[in-house]
Amino acid sequence: MRRPIITLTTDFGLSDHYVGTMKGVILGIARDAQILDISHEVAPFEVMDGAFTIAQAYPFFPKGSVHVVVVDPGVGSARRPVLAEAAGQFFIAPDNGVLTMMYERERHKVRAITNESFFLPGPSRTFHGRDVFAPCAAWLAGGRRPAEFGKLIRDYVQLGVLKPQRVGKRVWSGTVIRVDRFGNLITNLHVDEFGDIRKRSFELSVGLRRVGRLCSTYAEAGAEEFFAIVGSSGYIEVSLNQGSAAKQMGCGAGAPVELTFL
Amino acid sequence: MRRPIITLTTDFGLSDHYVGTMKGVILGIARDAQILDISHEVAPFEVMDGAFTIAQAYPFFPKGSVHVVVVDPGVGSARRPVLAEAAGQFFIAPDNGVLTMMYERERHKVRAITNESFFLPGPSRTFHGRDVFAPCAAWLAGGRRPAEFGKLIRDYVQLGVLKPQRVGKRVWSGTVIRVDRFGNLITNLHVDEFGDIRKRSFELSVGLRRVGRLCSTYAEAGAEEFFAIVGSSGYIEVSLNQGSAAKQMGCGAGAPVELTFL
Amino acid sequence: MRRPIITLTTDFGLSDHYVGTMKGVILGIARDAQILDISHEVAPFEVMDGAFTIAQAYPFFPKGSVHVVVVDPGVGSARRPVLAEAAGQFFIAPDNGVLTMMYERERHKVRAITNESFFLPGPSRTFHGRDVFAPCAAWLAGGRRPAEFGKLIRDYVQLGVLKPQRVGKRVWSGTVIRVDRFGNLITNLHVDEFGDIRKRSFELSVGLRRVGRLCSTYAEAGAEEFFAIVGSSGYIEVSLNQGSAAKQMGCGAGAPVELTFL
Repeated sequence: MRRPIITLTTDFGLSDHYVGTMKGVILGIARDAQILDISHEVAPFEVMDGAFTIAQAYPFFPKGSVHVVVVDPGVGSARRPVLAEAAGQFFIAPDNGVLTMMYERERHKVRAITNESFFLPGPSRTFHGRDVFAPCAAWLAGGRRPAEFGKLIRDYVQLGVLKPQRVGKRVWSGTVIRVDRFGNLITNLHVDEFGDIRKRSFELSVGLRRVGRLCSTYAEAGAEEFFAIVGSSGYIEVSLNQGSAAKQMGCGAGAPVELTFL
Repeated sequence: MRRPIITLTTDFGLSDHYVGTMKGVILGIARDAQILDISHEVAPFEVMDGAFTIAQAYPFFPKGSVHVVVVDPGVGSARRPVLAEAAGQFFIAPDNGVLTMMYERERHKVRAITNESFFLPGPSRTFHGRDVFAPCAAWLAGGRRPAEFGKLIRDYVQLGVLKPQRVGKRVWSGTVIRVDRFGNLITNLHVDEFGDIRKRSFELSVGLRRVGRLCSTYAEAGAEEFFAIVGSSGYIEVSLNQGSAAKQMGCGAGAPVELTFL
Repeated sequence: MRRPIITLTTDFGLSDHYVGTMKGVILGIARDAQILDISHEVAPFEVMDGAFTIAQAYPFFPKGSVHVVVVDPGVGSARRPVLAEAAGQFFIAPDNGVLTMMYERERHKVRAITNESFFLPGPSRTFHGRDVFAPCAAWLAGGRRPAEFGKLIRDYVQLGVLKPQRVGKRVWSGTVIRVDRFGNLITNLHVDEFGDIRKRSFELSVGLRRVGRLCSTYAEAGAEEFFAIVGSSGYIEVSLNQGSAAKQMGCGAGAPVELTFL
């Protein structure tokens, strides 16, 4: 039998024992699980940042993988834990919208997890990553059926994803949704909708800059030249060759962008 | 046969090759080991910070797990490597008190590791994580018996854990022992001793603030309201809902706290 | 059959989904691979920093390990992916010199990877870690023969490693090649060439300091005393006991050093 795959995406960081402790709980239940970190540096409490992170990664995992996503400012309150099935994979998370971007893209079924026999005994109200989500993921990966966890629900939380707005005949306004490690400004303009950027002249305004060039590789641009590029997940990014566009522009997540076709 | 579990807790950080190199050494000896990181962001050289980190995590690991704990300012000096057995698990560490909080809590046996045939040949005097602790953990996880590593000792190092002091009829002084990623101030006041905080009115002074409210979840409090909460390991914490109490207060590890029952 | 080992060394950091996504790709192809991180905190775009990182780690891995090294400012441009064989192990990387320090030390064979059937379909031009290097590593680890990936080449990129220069009868100039997590200044003076430091009086100048003492352990020195030490990889380091020499000196990677035998 194959070793089950469990991934972890959290805002717990790596300096505390939290992530390690979750792994101990998982191995106590599913001794052969293969545990992989997606990222633990989701911005603290930022549900949409977690939604973005898992949405970029899960499509590359094998069927049957169990993804645990814990960005959970409401831990211990009335918000429910959920188990979602989509794309042949499983997602275990708080019901606060952290699976929003996956829901948008995939046919999915969602269950409220109500079967407390899958929790650690006497769960805390402050660390459900350890007491609720990790053990549920381990039981599921170990072979328990989704239906054992709870009933299908329809009223799970799905957040509005910030979509680009048309604000003029040839003008769209959008947003920077994330700055990555290299300082690339990842916008919410996706090449599936804005493929014209490859064919037409355009101007993309971010902060005080106007960018008019589309590069197909980072290395193509000269030093200190801002350019647009279609990133690896299909979102249009504003970048600098071997430098941080975010730092040079003083822009971050949430900054408005405007795309004009000329 | 089950794959043995080896966990790593160090102050090595993740930017250097150190942790990866230790994993290579382990796999060279115990090819099937399952290696898990607890944390590598223990504060550099801070033995008690390492003691706290491993003490929160090990209780959640399965029996037979081998925990390697390397916070080792005295590397290469006369301090001994030790192998401790407790709670059905194993601990390999420098004998500098980094297992103190585990010793406090569990019945335990400690051996001085003297059998150098378990070390890498020609061990360095600066990187015992690679040359001493990792290979010993791998041999142990691979099935060698504890007694092969060296003799039981009684004079291993056990540090004094900072305990709350009673300083008045209804007043105790304590300390912040750690600030976690979310900015929660984790104090050394444990709910096992100070369970009254759940029943009686109290005032908890930290920095320039006095906190009088106990919440049972983070989400319960209003914005910008400091509150006390029983954390997931049982220590009383001072927190802010979706904000960093540590930053807002300008407090960190080592800051004094005072608890008064009214 | 043994689970194949794949290690990852990148400049991707851990805050984005990039590393997690690579792991998903690997497991989709080589379901039983054991994936280990060496470091993802190589300085962004710094090829030589990546070369140093993998060179310190690979000698401690078992034969047959596959090391993926992605520090790749030229991603998507004409630079080739390569597969190198050396020391009984395998290396998959962009052909930009990131394997330089390994090449220097080992007999090796290098192939240009031209067989695109090992890539993800429709590879992006911005994330070859996911689309090229991860899947190639997984296919190789899963048993495909190196010759299936492409032909042997001789014109692969090998960068000049900064060597110490003799600048006087008893004087050598060198460089700080890396500052580690503890603030140790790792120089390019290797004990294999400068073993005399153990026998003769010397003066090592770094920044505004002159260091004349060689310690064999960190703990040996007094507080606030700078000293030289032979690090765990054989490079001479300038260090402070339980403090950061780099911070105290205000020096970093690239700083010149001068060694004089008295």
